[in-house]
Amino acid sequence: MERFGNSSPDQVRLIIGFARAIAFVMGAGFSLAVGRIGMRMAVEANVRVASASKRSFGEALRIAYRAGTVTGMLTDGLGLLGGTIIFMILGIAAPDALLGFGFGGTLLALFMRVGGGIFTKAADVGADLVGKVEAGIPEDDPRNPAVIADLVGDNVGDCAGMAADIFESYEVTIVSGLILGLALWHITDRLEWIIFPLMVRGIGVFSSIIGTYFVKAGKTGKSEDAMKAIFSGFLTSAVVSAALFFIAGFLYLSTPEMSEWGGWWRLPMAVGVGVLLAIVIDRLTEYFTGTHASPVNEVKKAADTGPATLILNGISLGFESSVWSVLVIAITILASIAIFGTIDNPSLDAVGRSTFILYGVAMTGIGMLTLTGNNVAMDSFGPISDNANGIGEMAWSGKTDKETKDAQQIMADLDAVGNTTKAITKGVAIGSAVIAAVSLFGSFLVDVSRAQASLGTPLSEQIQAIGIRVDVPQVFVGMLIGGALPWLFSSFAIQAVSRAASLIVLEVRRQFKLGVLEGKVKPDYAQAVEISTTAAQKELVSLALLGIVTPIVVGLFLQVEALGGFLAGIIVSGQLLAVFLNNSGGAWDNAKKLIEDEPKDPAKNLGKGSERHKAGVVGDTVGDPFKDTAGPALNPMIKVVNLVAVIIAPIVVQYAGATGVTQFVVLAVGAALLGLLAWAVMRSKAPAPSMIVAEEVKPKNK
Amino acid sequence: MERFGNSSPDQVRLIIGFARAIAFVMGAGFSLAVGRIGMRMAVEANVRVASASKRSFGEALRIAYRAGTVTGMLTDGLGLLGGTIIFMILGIAAPDALLGFGFGGTLLALFMRVGGGIFTKAADVGADLVGKVEAGIPEDDPRNPAVIADLVGDNVGDCAGMAADIFESYEVTIVSGLILGLALWHITDRLEWIIFPLMVRGIGVFSSIIGTYFVKAGKTGKSEDAMKAIFSGFLTSAVVSAALFFIAGFLYLSTPEMSEWGGWWRLPMAVGVGVLLAIVIDRLTEYFTGTHASPVNEVKKAADTGPATLILNGISLGFESSVWSVLVIAITILASIAIFGTIDNPSLDAVGRSTFILYGVAMTGIGMLTLTGNNVAMDSFGPISDNANGIGEMAWSGKTDKETKDAQQIMADLDAVGNTTKAITKGVAIGSAVIAAVSLFGSFLVDVSRAQASLGTPLSEQIQAIGIRVDVPQVFVGMLIGGALPWLFSSFAIQAVSRAASLIVLEVRRQFKLGVLEGKVKPDYAQAVEISTTAAQKELVSLALLGIVTPIVVGLFLQVEALGGFLAGIIVSGQLLAVFLNNSGGAWDNAKKLIEDEPKDPAKNLGKGSERHKAGVVGDTVGDPFKDTAGPALNPMIKVVNLVAVIIAPIVVQYAGATGVTQFVVLAVGAALLGLLAWAVMRSKAPAPSMIVAEEVKPKNK
Repeated sequence: MERFGNSSPDQVRLIIGFARAIAFVMGAGFSLAVGRIGMRMAVEANVRVASASKRSFGEALRIAYRAGTVTGMLTDGLGLLGGTIIFMILGIAAPDALLGFGFGGTLLALFMRVGGGIFTKAADVGADLVGKVEAGIPEDDPRNPAVIADLVGDNVGDCAGMAADIFESYEVTIVSGLILGLALWHITDRLEWIIFPLMVRGIGVFSSIIGTYFVKAGKTGKSEDAMKAIFSGFLTSAVVSAALFFIAGFLYLSTPEMSEWGGWWRLPMAVGVGVLLAIVIDRLTEYFTGTHASPVNEVKKAADTGPATLILNGISLGFESSVWSVLVIAITILASIAIFGTIDNPSLDAVGRSTFILYGVAMTGIGMLTLTGNNVAMDSFGPISDNANGIGEMAWSGKTDKETKDAQQIMADLDAVGNTTKAITKGVAIGSAVIAAVSLFGSFLVDVSRAQASLGTPLSEQIQAIGIRVDVPQVFVGMLIGGALPWLFSSFAIQAVSRAASLIVLEVRRQFKLGVLEGKVKPDYAQAVEISTTAAQKELVSLALLGIVTPIVVGLFLQVEALGGFLAGIIVSGQLLAVFLNNSGGAWDNAKKLIEDEPKDPAKNLGKGSERHKAGVVGDTVGDPFKDTAGPALNPMIKVVNLVAVIIAPIVVQYAGATGVTQFVVLAVGAALLGLLAWAVMRSKAPAPSMIVAEEVKPKNK
Repeated sequence: MERFGNSSPDQVRLIIGFARAIAFVMGAGFSLAVGRIGMRMAVEANVRVASASKRSFGEALRIAYRAGTVTGMLTDGLGLLGGTIIFMILGIAAPDALLGFGFGGTLLALFMRVGGGIFTKAADVGADLVGKVEAGIPEDDPRNPAVIADLVGDNVGDCAGMAADIFESYEVTIVSGLILGLALWHITDRLEWIIFPLMVRGIGVFSSIIGTYFVKAGKTGKSEDAMKAIFSGFLTSAVVSAALFFIAGFLYLSTPEMSEWGGWWRLPMAVGVGVLLAIVIDRLTEYFTGTHASPVNEVKKAADTGPATLILNGISLGFESSVWSVLVIAITILASIAIFGTIDNPSLDAVGRSTFILYGVAMTGIGMLTLTGNNVAMDSFGPISDNANGIGEMAWSGKTDKETKDAQQIMADLDAVGNTTKAITKGVAIGSAVIAAVSLFGSFLVDVSRAQASLGTPLSEQIQAIGIRVDVPQVFVGMLIGGALPWLFSSFAIQAVSRAASLIVLEVRRQFKLGVLEGKVKPDYAQAVEISTTAAQKELVSLALLGIVTPIVVGLFLQVEALGGFLAGIIVSGQLLAVFLNNSGGAWDNAKKLIEDEPKDPAKNLGKGSERHKAGVVGDTVGDPFKDTAGPALNPMIKVVNLVAVIIAPIVVQYAGATGVTQFVVLAVGAALLGLLAWAVMRSKAPAPSMIVAEEVKPKNK
C-alpha cells in the first residue's frame, strides 16, 4: 500500500494483478529462453567435441564443459535480472509479482521437463526396442529411422528441460528468500535481509566463472581424470564463493543495527551451509551412481545372477540413497535452527523466530544454487558427451584405426562421466527444490496470515499462530493426499513414456517393412521426430493438470490448513521418490557402461553381447524413464504445486466461510476442477497401443 | 489412581509397571502362539489339499480355506481374551498394560514377519538361482537341496508371519480404541465407548463363522470359481456383521444419555465404514493384482517386449495402486470427521472434538478387522495351495495320466487364486496398520498431555492444545526422518534377502559338486533349512533395531513434538511404499502365472520356456522380496515405531528440560543409541558374499 501513495485499494489491486501477469510472462519467457539457448549450445557443441576427441582428451573435455557454462551464466543472469527488476519497480509490493515470476518459470520448466522427458525416452526406448532388440542392429545405427529423434531427445530432455528447471529453482529460491526477507523487514526494519541474498547471487556468478578455468585435463586421460577436473572446478568455485560470502557479510553487515539481530555472521553462515549442502549432495550422488564407488560395482556384480538381481540391487540402492539425501536436508534445516533460532532479541515472538528460521532455510537454498553456473555446465556435459559419442559412432562406423578407436574411447569415457554429472545435478536440483519448497511453505504461512488479517481474523486464529497441525484429522488427510501425488505423477509419467515409445515402435516397424534396413528406401527421420513431439505435447497436458489442479481442489474442499498439510506431504514423499528414481536410474546406466568397458568375450560372459550385458541393458531400460522422465519432472512439479498453493491460498481463505450462492459457486468450481482431474487421470491411464500389434507381428527370436 | 484406592503413587506406578510387563509377555506369547499354530495348520493342510485335488475341486478349495479359518478364529479369540482380561483386572488403569500387550504382540509379529520373510525368500531365490537358472532343473525338483527350505519358507513367511501380523493389528486396533474410549469416558462419563468395541469384536467372530460356510464350489472349477466362492464368503460375513452392528447399536446405545453425545447410530456407522473399507481395499487389490483385471494383463503384454518393459509396467502399476489405497484411507478419515466431528454438544471443546474423531478412526480400524477370521483364512490359503502344488509336483513327477493332470491343474488354479488372496489380505493388513497408526497417533497425544499435566505444564502449553505443527522446523525435520525410515528399512530388507540367498546358493552349489544332481549323494535338506534359519535370525536383529531405536533417538534429540512429526511422516511414506511393494510383487507373480497357463510353445513365444516366460520370471524374482519380505514387514514396523513412540513419550517429556548431570545422562543414552543405530546400518549394508564366488565358478550358459 505504502508504495502506491494515493491510489485507491482497488487501483492497487489492479496494478499488482497486472504486474503479476507481466512477471508471469517474463518468468515463462526467461525459462523458455534458457531452455532453448541451452539446447542450441549443446547442439553446437556436440560435433565440436566429437571432432576434438580426435585431437586431445583435454580439449574435448573443455569444449563439452564450457558449452554448458554459457547456459549456466545465462541462467544466473536472467534469474538475477528478473528478480532485481521486479524489486526495483515494485518495492514492498514485490512479493505478488515475484510469485508470478516464479510461477511462470516453474510452469514452463514443468512443461519442458515432462515434455522433454517423454520425448527423449519415447525416442530412446522405441529406437532400442525395434532396432537393438528386434532387428539386431547396433545402437545409433543410421538405418534406424528413430535414431535422430533419440539424439534430439537427449538435448530436449537434458539440456532444455534441465536448464529451464535449474533456472526455475534459481528463481524460486530467490523469490522465497525475498518474500521472507520482506517479512523480516516488517519485523526488524532492516533492508539487509533483502539486499544480502542479491549480493550472494552476484558472488556466485563471479566464483562460477573462476571455477570454470579449473576444469582442464591433459592430452590423454580416463574418466577419473575428467571427473576429478570437473569436481576441482566445482570445489574451487565453492571455496571462492564461501570466502567472499564472509568478507561481504563482514563488510556489509557488521553494523550496530544488525548486531541487535544476531550479528553479521549468521547470514554468510547460512549461505555457506547451502554451499556445503550442494557439495555433500554432489559427493553422495557420485558415491551412489559413480562408476568407481562400491554401489554401482555391486549392481554390476549382481548382473552375474541375471537381470532380476540387478534390478533388485539397483532398487535397494535407490531406496537407500534417498534416505541419506533426506537426512542431509534434515541436517540442513537443523543448521538453520541453530543459526537463526538462537537470535537473542527480546522483541522476537514465536512467529518471528519461526520466520527467521525459514528465512535461514531460504538462504541455504540460495547458497545451494550459488554455483548454478557450474551445475548447469555439469548437467549439459551429460547430453553433449552422450551425443558426441553417438555422432562418432555414426560418422566413423566401420573405422578401426587406432586414432578413431582412441577418440571413441575418449568419448565413451566422457559419456560415463556425463551420466554421473547429470545424476549429481539432478541431486542438487531436487535438493534445492525441497529446500525451496520448505521456504515456500514459510511464504505460504505469511501469505495466508496476511489474507486472514485483511478479512479481520484475529491474530490468535490466524494460520501463523495456530500452524499446520497434522494431529487435526483434516490436515492429516491433506498430508496423505499430498504424499500420494508424486507417486501418481511418476506412475503416469512412466506410462506416458511407454505409450509414446509404442508409437515410435510402430513407425520404425512400418519403415523397416518398406525396406529401410536393406537400403531400398531412405529412412524418414523427420517422421519419428514428429511423432515424439506430438506424443510428448499430448501427454504433458494431463500430467501438468495434476500439478496445477490438485492443490486448488484440496484447498477448495478441505480448507487452507489441509492445503498446508498437503504441501508438507508432497515435500516428504516427492523428495524420497525423486532421489530414488534418479539414483537407481543413474546406477543402472553406469553399471551397464562398466560391463561394456570389459574386453568383449561372450563365451566368458564378459563385455558387450554377454548375458551379463543383457542384464545390464534391462536395468538401463528400466532406469531410463526413472532418471530422465519421472524423477527429474518431480522437481518442477513440487514447486508448481507449492506456488499454486501460495497463489490460491488467499482465495481459499476468502471463500472459506461462504454461504448461499457464493458457496454454491465455489463448490461448483471445485466439482468442475475435480472433473478435470478425473479426465486427466483417465487420459493418463489409457493403455499403450503397441502391445497388441506386437503380439501379432512378432516372432521376436529371429 | 482411583482404581487402587489406598495405595501410594509409587506403589501404583510399580503395580502398573508390573502389569505392563505381564501384558507384554502375554501379547508376545499370544502372537507367537498364533504364528506357530497357523504354521502347523498349514503344514497339516498341504498334503490333504494335494490329496483332495485328485477327488474334487470343491473339496480341495474347502480344505485349503478352512485350515486357515482355524488360525483366524484363534486370532480373534486370543485378541479378545487378552484385551478383555486386562480391562477387567485394571479398569481405568488399563491403557498402560494395553500398550504393553500391543507392543508384545507387535514386536513378535515384526520378528516373525521380517525373519520369516527373509527365510522364505532366501530359500526361494537361492533355490531358483542355482536350480532353475544354473542347473536347469525344474522348480520344486527333489534333487535341489534347498527345495525343502523353500517349501518351509512359504509357511514361515506367509502363515506364521501373516497370522502374527494380523493378530497384532487386531490387538493394536482394540488397544487404541480402548485408550481413546477411556479418554471419551473422561469427557462424557459414559462407558459405552469402551463396551461397544468389544461387542463389535464378538459380532465379528460370529459372522466370520457364518461366512466360512459360503466358501464352496463344485467337483470341477477354475480359478474364477474359487475367487468367487472366497469373495462370496467374505461378502456374506460383511453383510451379516454390518446388520448386527446396527441392531446391537440400536438396542444398546439408543438411550437418552447417549443421545446427548450424538445418538446411537454414529458408532455402528463408523464400524460399518470400516467393513466397507476392508471390502473396497479387497476389490482394489484384486483389481491391481488379480489375473482377470486389466492391470496384470497389461503387465503380461509388456512381457512381449522383454523384462525391462514388464518391470516398468509393474512398477507404474504399483505406484498407482498405492495412490488409490491412500485415497481410500483419506476418505475413511473424512468419513470419521463427518460422523464424529458433527456431534452437537455444547460442552465439547476442540480437543474433545478431535478425540471423538480419532476415536471414530479407531472404530473404523476395528470395523476393518471385524472379518479377521476370513482374512487370515484367505491369507493362509495362499501358502497352503502353493505348497500343495509343490507337493503334487514332487510326488507325482513324471505321471501324465488325466487324473493327475486334472489334479495338477486344480492346484495350479488354486495357487493363482492364493496369490491374489494373499495380496488382498496384505492390502487389508497395511490399511488397518495405517488406520491403527492414525488412532495410535491420537493415543500418543493423549499420553503426552497426561505426562505433561503430571509435570505441571499448563493446559495451553500441553501438546493437545498446541498440536503437532509441521510448520515448526524441528517438527518438519522429524517428519522428514519419519518419511525416510520405511525406505531405509525396505532397502535393507531387500539387501538382507540377497545376502541370505547367496548363502543358500553357495550351499546348493557345494552339494551339487558332491554329486547330488547325478543321484550319487542324497541331498541334505536340513543344511539349507539351517542356513536360512540362522541367516534370517541374524538379519532381523539390525532391522528390528531400526524400528525400535529410531523413535527413541528422535524423541531424545528433537523432543516430543518432532516425535509426533516423525510418526506422521512414517505413516504417509510407509503406507505408500508398502502398498507399492505388495501390489507390484503380486502383479508380477500373477503375470508370470498367466504366461505359464498358455499352451507351451517356445517357437511361438508362448508358455513356459519362452522368451516371454523368462521375462515373467525376472519380474517374479524382483517381486519376491517386494511382496514377501519388505512390503509386509512395513506393516508391523510402522506399529512398532508408533508403540515405542507412545511408550517413550512420557519419558521424553520428563527429561525435556533436564539440566546438569541428568541432561548429560540423557545425551549419553541418546548417543549410545545413535551408535547402536549406526551399527545396525553398517551391518545391513554389508555386501553379499556370493557374487564374488559366482564370478569365479560360473560360466552360466551351460
